[in-house]
Amino acid sequence: MHKFKLKQPLQTWRGEALSPVTLAYETWGELNAERSNAILLFTGLSPGAHAASSEDDPESGWWEAMLGPGKPIDSTRFFVICINSLGSCLGSTGPDSLNPASGKPWRLDFPELAIEDIAASSWQVVQHLGITQLHCVIGPSMGGMTALALLKQFPQSARHMISISSAAAANPFAIAIRSLQREAIVTDPNWQNGHYSDSCWPISGMRMARKLGMISYRSALEWQQRFDRQPQSQFATTTYGMNFQVESYLEAHALKFIGQFDPCCYVYLSRAMDWFDASDRHDDDLSAMLSQTALQSALILGVHTDLLFPLSDQQALAVAMDKTGIRHELLALDSLQGHDAFLIDIDRFGPPIHRYLA
Amino acid sequence: MHKFKLKQPLQTWRGEALSPVTLAYETWGELNAERSNAILLFTGLSPGAHAASSEDDPESGWWEAMLGPGKPIDSTRFFVICINSLGSCLGSTGPDSLNPASGKPWRLDFPELAIEDIAASSWQVVQHLGITQLHCVIGPSMGGMTALALLKQFPQSARHMISISSAAAANPFAIAIRSLQREAIVTDPNWQNGHYSDSCWPISGMRMARKLGMISYRSALEWQQRFDRQPQSQFATTTYGMNFQVESYLEAHALKFIGQFDPCCYVYLSRAMDWFDASDRHDDDLSAMLSQTALQSALILGVHTDLLFPLSDQQALAVAMDKTGIRHELLALDSLQGHDAFLIDIDRFGPPIHRYLA
Repeated sequence: MHKFKLKQPLQTWRGEALSPVTLAYETWGELNAERSNAILLFTGLSPGAHAASSEDDPESGWWEAMLGPGKPIDSTRFFVICINSLGSCLGSTGPDSLNPASGKPWRLDFPELAIEDIAASSWQVVQHLGITQLHCVIGPSMGGMTALALLKQFPQSARHMISISSAAAANPFAIAIRSLQREAIVTDPNWQNGHYSDSCWPISGMRMARKLGMISYRSALEWQQRFDRQPQSQFATTTYGMNFQVESYLEAHALKFIGQFDPCCYVYLSRAMDWFDASDRHDDDLSAMLSQTALQSALILGVHTDLLFPLSDQQALAVAMDKTGIRHELLALDSLQGHDAFLIDIDRFGPPIHRYLA
Repeated sequence: MHKFKLKQPLQTWRGEALSPVTLAYETWGELNAERSNAILLFTGLSPGAHAASSEDDPESGWWEAMLGPGKPIDSTRFFVICINSLGSCLGSTGPDSLNPASGKPWRLDFPELAIEDIAASSWQVVQHLGITQLHCVIGPSMGGMTALALLKQFPQSARHMISISSAAAANPFAIAIRSLQREAIVTDPNWQNGHYSDSCWPISGMRMARKLGMISYRSALEWQQRFDRQPQSQFATTTYGMNFQVESYLEAHALKFIGQFDPCCYVYLSRAMDWFDASDRHDDDLSAMLSQTALQSALILGVHTDLLFPLSDQQALAVAMDKTGIRHELLALDSLQGHDAFLIDIDRFGPPIHRYLA
């Protein structure tokens, strides 16, 4: 994993200054002599920069099946960069980093974070690598928002885009779910207005936030086929539940997540998604924003069973593209796994991404 | 509102005895001489027996537009009974009632409640009114489960059924949502293992449970059209949210609910829904259960946008009916309002119910 430290304080989208800013990133493949084969991959809310294994780090990444030599995002042809989002806690600066003024973690003193800040700080990494225009920017989920935030601020930044199970603006149903996730975290008595400690962690709030996340990431149809009404024996039955396999599945996922992700970082990134609207500096005219970019084409992928970023979100992006000269294709895939399908259903997601990049 | 006190302790479905049991109910219309025009209406999780206004209680009921003279459930033709579910807190015995052994509310000492107990206790009210067989049993949501629980235990109890946005067994997605709602309540520090008091109420847990309920009761499409990304000014912005109208809408609904419904009753009824499976005493063969009943026909209504009781639930009931001699019709309605549509979209729900009963 590489680290890049910004030379200047970051002027944030909502009008504050943040310093110091370090971003963690990984790369795959080689930049060609023309510096024209770079792909920037933005992530969803919780993954880090380790999208796939490499010589430096042979451990499997979160998109292992999608990225690598001969894979749909082919690292023998492209120079691929994946950056841990600003505000996250997996190597990049975020609310859990040290505030130099206090010598303690920033927590709620961290500046209000916008998706635009994730994009703008990441763009400095790309420039640092000697790239002035990306061949393609790819973003699933929150990463698709970040891709649009990049184009909004740096219209010449990319020639092509793959937007996956994402949106040009947060819809009210997704806002409701994320708002409730954050409420679960900050109403946990251990939250302590952001002053939680290792021995006093908002476990209960993080557990519920993750469970609600899983509910919004998957689909009823998948769970019907996968769990039906099978009983569980992994956990003791509680007042509230733990009778059925679907409950133990959620519990196991939540327990894993609690120790992995900082609650404050989660709240900041989640809120940034709600705030995001790619067209807010263009009188809510997304076509106008897109028209000013160097984008030549776009591939927009979505899934019928996605609750959090439903097909209507991807359709809205495609409709805006219709009014521009940007060639684009919207594919509505039949995956069962809802919003998470891009991580799992490589059989459906791999071929169109491979074809588009070829 | 009438009250009926069971003569004997209720032997519960899960093998306990409950006494005393009082059920609150209301009626509309007149029982005919043949006692053949009775309709029993079971409710969803939270409503009480006051389904519609009457001379005794002129206040509007929860299904005012559906029930009354000349309405789809026509009280000039039918004698309609609506009973507050056992376990609820709106007049009938439930976990918030006094436990005679302790002189305090039952709370978690209340016997484990099953949907079958709601049906069996309600059947005693029907018999008390001199009715041996219902013309029709109607149930929306949890009420549709209760209707099947009635037929499962008393196969001769009804000739016709209207099952609305309901299921013959809880599906894993709905279980996940309800399990998380209960978790929010019982992990609230004020829950106190059920020993909450008026001055120490699990407000935070009930608020989150209700918000998650609303998320599962409505649809993304409705909220997109209704709220889009409109800002709100009703509540102060918090760490977690309150920027958008959809958030203030949820907050207002939650605040109203907190004082209206007992947390313990909520947990008991919610858990009973998860446990319910209409075919569990018939080797999971729902057709076998239905075949043993006096049912002559059934109307099954569902909504495309329902997340909690998706159309696949109603289709499963219809498929089971296909193997029986019971005439039945499944209507998939185009309402925007998701699971709650039966309460709101009377234009779509009224006509088929009127036609079926005529």
